[in-house]
Amino acid sequence: MALIVQKFGGSSVASLERVRHVAKIVTDTYIAGNDVVVVLSAQGKMTDRLIALANEYNPRASKRELDQLLSIGEQQSVALAAMCIQGMGFPVVSLNAWQVGFKTNTTYGNARIKKIDTERIQMELDQRKIVIFTGFQGINRRGDITTLGRGGSDTSAVALAAALRADLCQIYTDVDGVYTADPNTVEGARKLDEITYDEMLELASLGAKVLHNRSVEMAKHYHVELEVLSSFTGNPGTKVKEVAKRMEHTQVSGVAKDKSIARIALVGIKNEPGIAFRVFSLLSGKKINVDIILQSIGREEWKDIAFTVARKDLNQAVSLLEEYKSVLGYDGIEVNDHIAKVSMVGAGMIGNPGVASGMFEALYNAGININMISTSEIKISVLVDEKDADRAVQVVHTKFFSEYGSQS
Amino acid sequence: MALIVQKFGGSSVASLERVRHVAKIVTDTYIAGNDVVVVLSAQGKMTDRLIALANEYNPRASKRELDQLLSIGEQQSVALAAMCIQGMGFPVVSLNAWQVGFKTNTTYGNARIKKIDTERIQMELDQRKIVIFTGFQGINRRGDITTLGRGGSDTSAVALAAALRADLCQIYTDVDGVYTADPNTVEGARKLDEITYDEMLELASLGAKVLHNRSVEMAKHYHVELEVLSSFTGNPGTKVKEVAKRMEHTQVSGVAKDKSIARIALVGIKNEPGIAFRVFSLLSGKKINVDIILQSIGREEWKDIAFTVARKDLNQAVSLLEEYKSVLGYDGIEVNDHIAKVSMVGAGMIGNPGVASGMFEALYNAGININMISTSEIKISVLVDEKDADRAVQVVHTKFFSEYGSQS
Repeated sequence: MALIVQKFGGSSVASLERVRHVAKIVTDTYIAGNDVVVVLSAQGKMTDRLIALANEYNPRASKRELDQLLSIGEQQSVALAAMCIQGMGFPVVSLNAWQVGFKTNTTYGNARIKKIDTERIQMELDQRKIVIFTGFQGINRRGDITTLGRGGSDTSAVALAAALRADLCQIYTDVDGVYTADPNTVEGARKLDEITYDEMLELASLGAKVLHNRSVEMAKHYHVELEVLSSFTGNPGTKVKEVAKRMEHTQVSGVAKDKSIARIALVGIKNEPGIAFRVFSLLSGKKINVDIILQSIGREEWKDIAFTVARKDLNQAVSLLEEYKSVLGYDGIEVNDHIAKVSMVGAGMIGNPGVASGMFEALYNAGININMISTSEIKISVLVDEKDADRAVQVVHTKFFSEYGSQS
Repeated sequence: MALIVQKFGGSSVASLERVRHVAKIVTDTYIAGNDVVVVLSAQGKMTDRLIALANEYNPRASKRELDQLLSIGEQQSVALAAMCIQGMGFPVVSLNAWQVGFKTNTTYGNARIKKIDTERIQMELDQRKIVIFTGFQGINRRGDITTLGRGGSDTSAVALAAALRADLCQIYTDVDGVYTADPNTVEGARKLDEITYDEMLELASLGAKVLHNRSVEMAKHYHVELEVLSSFTGNPGTKVKEVAKRMEHTQVSGVAKDKSIARIALVGIKNEPGIAFRVFSLLSGKKINVDIILQSIGREEWKDIAFTVARKDLNQAVSLLEEYKSVLGYDGIEVNDHIAKVSMVGAGMIGNPGVASGMFEALYNAGININMISTSEIKISVLVDEKDADRAVQVVHTKFFSEYGSQS
């Protein structure tokens, strides 16, 4: 007998029919002899509807009152799901964050989890009840409701799994696992049986929208074994864990692209110590994240610095750099918002020089120009023209994952 | 400066426009220098919608889960109202039952209030905040949500007023006070400035659906001064208190009718000690309330017993009596469900024999036959044919409240 935490997102509980399906998954797990704690999001678009409602009443409402309002979405989900499971003849109890003692700090709208009391849940599990818990929300030390921010239900589930020392935390979603590339656009994309936390983190940050980074980071920190799987198909999903078994001959776990970036280049900047620090501390002061950075080798008095930012931050970043032009001392700014980042992720990559060269070879063969390169322990990213991005992902993926591709 | 509790029902907060209007009433009270605690019901038909939703998921859901679900109605109201008041620039905080510590017993769906912690509310009031509180709900010692039953928000408001030792508890509704008779059907019906708790209790039980008896009983017990007034008109309402000033020359405070009753007569029942006890303990054992009782004077071996029950209980009462026919020993049952009760209520009535005779005279003049009569300290009720009920109320009301009527 194991203790399993199962999390279902908004689309999985959007209707009576969907909730019945969730109830079937949950009770099957229970019948198999497991203790089951279920974490639910609000039904379908309910959170969006509540936000719209709040905007009607006061577009500048305090976050404290907004959290007070939003929390009713998950309360509705858990009560209805509990009723449905009762109707199937199983012992069940729904619990809100305050009933459990799911404690957070006081940052309304984006609270951090501090401590989870497990006494109440443990008591219900001891009575062999299925526990249905509200994701996304907590209470702070003032006794007020907080929410964890969008995607917070994943984090709720992982945190609960950690606090309860659960054997497994299953995140049910509308995809049936983590793929080597986006299966909707990349031919030959395959589902991974296992992946490491670090690989998952890199893939998530690259736009593979399966799990929120925050939940993966927490799972890694507390050694919670995760499984991403579909509530629609019933197939086994992808396990996310410390060390992943690789059935493949390759060390690569996935190829992803990110089109939501832009490149900024500062041309003719003074080649003096501390200049990079001045540029990037200016941007980080305004919460603008910088990704790939390329600095020309300064042989002369002048050099160039290029870097990428999220496309949504582009205008603010450029205004800021222009405002401080005299302080930074550069000749001009060049901006390119028609670029994309293509990345390969794999835990064993760094010790295998063939991986990087294989990637470059595949891109070269396809006639795709590489703009900038960045590498980390488990990732190689290249900047390419936006129009080449999809093709780049395909050729790199084929190179490493297609049986034929790897021989070409 | 006074502490005022203001309660607004579902229709008063049904839309943004209505909530804005409530916010105006609340903030006007606050600006006048008062501490204000506001108790809200769920918006419009939300509770009904949630019940319908629960029925979809499980028509036999446990009351515990139903309360868990229903509680979100008031949570939505208080958060939205707080946002609205924030938008007007006032300090405000919404609080749920569990945040305050509004403690009840564990009877889900119809919980009784046990104890209210005032610390949190007092703290917020000390900071000169307007407090918006969820009516209708509480928490029990298990830490679960309970609801107080329909109309529970009135009771929440009175209980809060008692716990906080408020100077006044205003119940805002869609009528502007307590009338001498139903103003929609009785010509000359007039609003009362004041009425006693006892009169209010009698009127409420007679179908003047202004305040729930439970809230009036609690107000009486804890000496909470109530005011019933309209959230639509802004006119002064009716004060409900221990002793009411009467501006009128009459001791009568109101005339009401109740058509939802039926009469049962047991004919030819044995005239022996304990027979009435056997009949009525049988009925009370099934929670069937009996109202007016008339027992024929038993000169012979046999007598008759007639009494009224709520019309909804009629079938159950008759089956029960038939089942125990041999034990009770009677000849036959006669049933009349085309009757109505017309009552006059007034604290000073009993010491004024002219009141009863005035009532009988008015009915006699109108050719209305009196079927049964019952009197209490502050009430005279008569049973009439259902078809005569409206006319009976009108002629009795005219007799006591019309300047001309009282002279006729």
